Amino acid sequence: MPSYTLVISCPDRVGIVAAVSCFVAERGGSLLESNHHTDVAQGWFFMRNVISASSLQLGPAQFREEFAPLAAKHDMQWSLRDNSEPQRVAILASHASHCLADILHRWKSGDLACEIPCVISNHENLRSMVEWHGIPFHYVPVPKENKEEAFARIMDILQRHRAETIVLARYMQIIPPQMCREYAGKLINIHHSFLPSFIGANPYMRAYERGVKLIGATCHYVTEDLDEGPIIEQDVIRVNHSCDKDDMVRLGRDVEQAVLSRGLRYHLEDRVIVHGNKTIVFSS
Amino acid sequence: MPSYTLVISCPDRVGIVAAVSCFVAERGGSLLESNHHTDVAQGWFFMRNVISASSLQLGPAQFREEFAPLAAKHDMQWSLRDNSEPQRVAILASHASHCLADILHRWKSGDLACEIPCVISNHENLRSMVEWHGIPFHYVPVPKENKEEAFARIMDILQRHRAETIVLARYMQIIPPQMCREYAGKLINIHHSFLPSFIGANPYMRAYERGVKLIGATCHYVTEDLDEGPIIEQDVIRVNHSCDKDDMVRLGRDVEQAVLSRGLRYHLEDRVIVHGNKTIVFSS
Amino acid sequence: MPSYTLVISCPDRVGIVAAVSCFVAERGGSLLESNHHTDVAQGWFFMRNVISASSLQLGPAQFREEFAPLAAKHDMQWSLRDNSEPQRVAILASHASHCLADILHRWKSGDLACEIPCVISNHENLRSMVEWHGIPFHYVPVPKENKEEAFARIMDILQRHRAETIVLARYMQIIPPQMCREYAGKLINIHHSFLPSFIGANPYMRAYERGVKLIGATCHYVTEDLDEGPIIEQDVIRVNHSCDKDDMVRLGRDVEQAVLSRGLRYHLEDRVIVHGNKTIVFSS
Amino acid sequence: MPSYTLVISCPDRVGIVAAVSCFVAERGGSLLESNHHTDVAQGWFFMRNVISASSLQLGPAQFREEFAPLAAKHDMQWSLRDNSEPQRVAILASHASHCLADILHRWKSGDLACEIPCVISNHENLRSMVEWHGIPFHYVPVPKENKEEAFARIMDILQRHRAETIVLARYMQIIPPQMCREYAGKLINIHHSFLPSFIGANPYMRAYERGVKLIGATCHYVTEDLDEGPIIEQDVIRVNHSCDKDDMVRLGRDVEQAVLSRGLRYHLEDRVIVHGNKTIVFSS
Repeated sequence: MPSYTLVISCPDRVGIVAAVSCFVAERGGSLLESNHHTDVAQGWFFMRNVISASSLQLGPAQFREEFAPLAAKHDMQWSLRDNSEPQRVAILASHASHCLADILHRWKSGDLACEIPCVISNHENLRSMVEWHGIPFHYVPVPKENKEEAFARIMDILQRHRAETIVLARYMQIIPPQMCREYAGKLINIHHSFLPSFIGANPYMRAYERGVKLIGATCHYVTEDLDEGPIIEQDVIRVNHSCDKDDMVRLGRDVEQAVLSRGLRYHLEDRVIVHGNKTIVFSS
Repeated sequence: MPSYTLVISCPDRVGIVAAVSCFVAERGGSLLESNHHTDVAQGWFFMRNVISASSLQLGPAQFREEFAPLAAKHDMQWSLRDNSEPQRVAILASHASHCLADILHRWKSGDLACEIPCVISNHENLRSMVEWHGIPFHYVPVPKENKEEAFARIMDILQRHRAETIVLARYMQIIPPQMCREYAGKLINIHHSFLPSFIGANPYMRAYERGVKLIGATCHYVTEDLDEGPIIEQDVIRVNHSCDKDDMVRLGRDVEQAVLSRGLRYHLEDRVIVHGNKTIVFSS
Repeated sequence: MPSYTLVISCPDRVGIVAAVSCFVAERGGSLLESNHHTDVAQGWFFMRNVISASSLQLGPAQFREEFAPLAAKHDMQWSLRDNSEPQRVAILASHASHCLADILHRWKSGDLACEIPCVISNHENLRSMVEWHGIPFHYVPVPKENKEEAFARIMDILQRHRAETIVLARYMQIIPPQMCREYAGKLINIHHSFLPSFIGANPYMRAYERGVKLIGATCHYVTEDLDEGPIIEQDVIRVNHSCDKDDMVRLGRDVEQAVLSRGLRYHLEDRVIVHGNKTIVFSS
Repeated sequence: MPSYTLVISCPDRVGIVAAVSCFVAERGGSLLESNHHTDVAQGWFFMRNVISASSLQLGPAQFREEFAPLAAKHDMQWSLRDNSEPQRVAILASHASHCLADILHRWKSGDLACEIPCVISNHENLRSMVEWHGIPFHYVPVPKENKEEAFARIMDILQRHRAETIVLARYMQIIPPQMCREYAGKLINIHHSFLPSFIGANPYMRAYERGVKLIGATCHYVTEDLDEGPIIEQDVIRVNHSCDKDDMVRLGRDVEQAVLSRGLRYHLEDRVIVHGNKTIVFSS
């Protein structure tokens, strides 16, 4: 069913729900889904409405124009997305295939509502898999001595493909600050530990050495502080004394791809609102 | 924070959220929590609002009076609860102590917002535990040849204690149809299987014989159809070949009490709306 | 590390572990992993030993020859597998791609120790994916009026490819009794419900109608009794009132492929022993 | 069924299982349960055997005497417990009741095979609950300026009650090094976070501030390094943006008591072997 998604966050005041729902109702808008959250401690309000497109008497451009004064009055941060226009999601991958393969399969099955204009990797080994899906593959090596030029090329490719969201599918390279800022709130990473445990390198080895009984993965927005960005989704899996580090790596792969694909889905459906360094996730 | 909870279900139409939120906003009401659900296929709408009591310019009686015309116009089923008046929850138990002990401990810790006016059991063994909590204990044996009289006594006790919600904490007796109707939507059972698996007696023995790898429990409203009422909450726990039937009973107890206490909490916080034979559960 | 896996089940008697472990130790065998289970109620004993190949002073053929008298003395059912010879796993698929794609990706990544000599399907849509993996794809339609001939062709293909294990990756066709018997204990199905809930067709629709709060999947050996064979592995995922039947299908896919790949791994590593209609699963 | 539990860890060599199982079999011992683990990387072997007492032709004292030479030959660390003699478990609690109430209920239901000779607390509020269970309650305040004397009193009480295992049921006081050493491998704590996340104080507040999507609890042996001891068991529960810190505390309580009671059960059944700073847990 064609629909628009209206997402709002603003200071909490009496009458905001009334104002927004009256605005929508007066234009004939039928709500397919509506999620609210009030952060009582901080006095902040968050809202997501999915509105049936066919019920509305105006298009998205006019909606935005008419909504702007109301939004301004209530100091809203807001967006209206036309869900008939799938987002353009570029994927950065390294050598490991599991997260990329999972996303590509979901996309090809029609299970993930987006376009994938390109995959960029610093290795060649996944080219064939990507191209079999009919997606352009760009090989951009990232030499230690000249990362700057590599990321300039990557930024260029992303812009040519008009990427709106970037997924780091176990990309394993540190993203330069400028790119973090450019794609703030649009750059999604999967970290292979249950953050804040095992921030940084080699989390499985450190989990093995510590003797934890669960290992996990964390999907988060990338910020300039490595592994410190707003968390979108996490999950864990049980391990025991019979698991060596390689078993943890293997078991962890399943959690990584599950957590990344859930986090990406929430993001694509505008279910995630970043507030400070935390997220509101209106998971269905 | 003192609050009221307004719960609504009605045919879905454009403007209902607007009407309700305008009604609340015009009376100064500040929303602490708001949950919506539209069943698009059935054209039905469900809403739960928690309103700060101190923000409202009127009390609950007047709120109900003024809201009634709006509710009638939209064919709403609705209720407004003053959360400063805890519900009165009577518990029926049999010989097993775990679910009862768990609820009593949560209640005593201030973790479950209700009053427990009485516990009724067909065994004497839990009397001391109940009375230590300062709660009246009624021993009502249920002889096979005269169940009718026993349940008449039980109904009488429930009414004298003005019980609003009845919890069957592994009560193990079939509730007569009249009592099911009398307390429709207010009579909560915990069944010791993952329904609809193993409906009826001895679910753990049957789970053991089938060789399932997970066992579970189901919290549901009691209807005249045994084990067929609307499901509120379910959960499972892993078992394996080394578990005999007694191990399953032991492991199952933890799931039963967890599922029952979650289901009861959802019920007490008016998070559960029964629609047909299913539930909408606005779990936080 | 090259290894053999010795799997034994027999009536429980004092001295069996001693006899087997002495046999292995006398031939220099170093145990890499050892799992035991005694079913005390039934008086039956189960054992799985992984033995370092390089530590043994004899090869698998001679091991089997020398072990046979001991096995006979204790009425053992037993097998010794040389783990350097991967099993040959044929896959039967229908229209849905997710379980097949998952197994193929794990196999291609070197994560699943087996050979996949062929995929057989009653639809053509997955041919390209299978062939991209370098695996022969056989299209065998199964017309309602002539299933017998279709399954004769399938049996012929399986035998030509010397398939040892058959995986039904959401195959959706009822396997004829003769094939069930031919591949008893080697024919693995994934059923899209938490058995014994929703045996038979359309489990997601029935789960939706019942209003369950968890949906699941079951990996089991196929027997002539549909959906009644020994269960290898099960798992569930949480759903709620906002999930319609299509959401359940989508969420269920992830559980199906996870449960199938775990069950298949256990089978390939000889961790599963069928006893009556149940399984011992020495999951690591 | 009366039984002994024999637990062994030693350098891995060919023939150890054979030697131990021959020793047991020669004395008529019937194995009820047997768990093995080989740490191939470290070359270390771990074994737990539960032996039917009635099948053995000798008592535990004589078993130990006859087994000692074999153990010495293979450099074993080992123990043989007569399971008809329940362990004596003392509990240290502070103000929070949930973990203590859970353990006491399990013990009273006959679900936890131990004796509880006493509960010690630095608060008086749980006295009535403990004494209702018929267990001596010792109030030992721990003033900041004189912790040493307090812990001397605690040690004295523990020794008078011949406590073998000490459970810190949310005790909230740092255990002095001498007591850690005295009860090494016998002093069990529940930490209210998923270690190594949020080591130290106020883990729920820090989890809330970080915006994690799962919170957890960790049961571990206490060592002189706070929160760094060998982990026995962990688990997590899902939280979301609607949970404030108090909700996390409430939800966390259920995980804490579940994890502590599982960990304690494993310990009491001699399923846990400490090796370095990690544990082998032969969970059934």
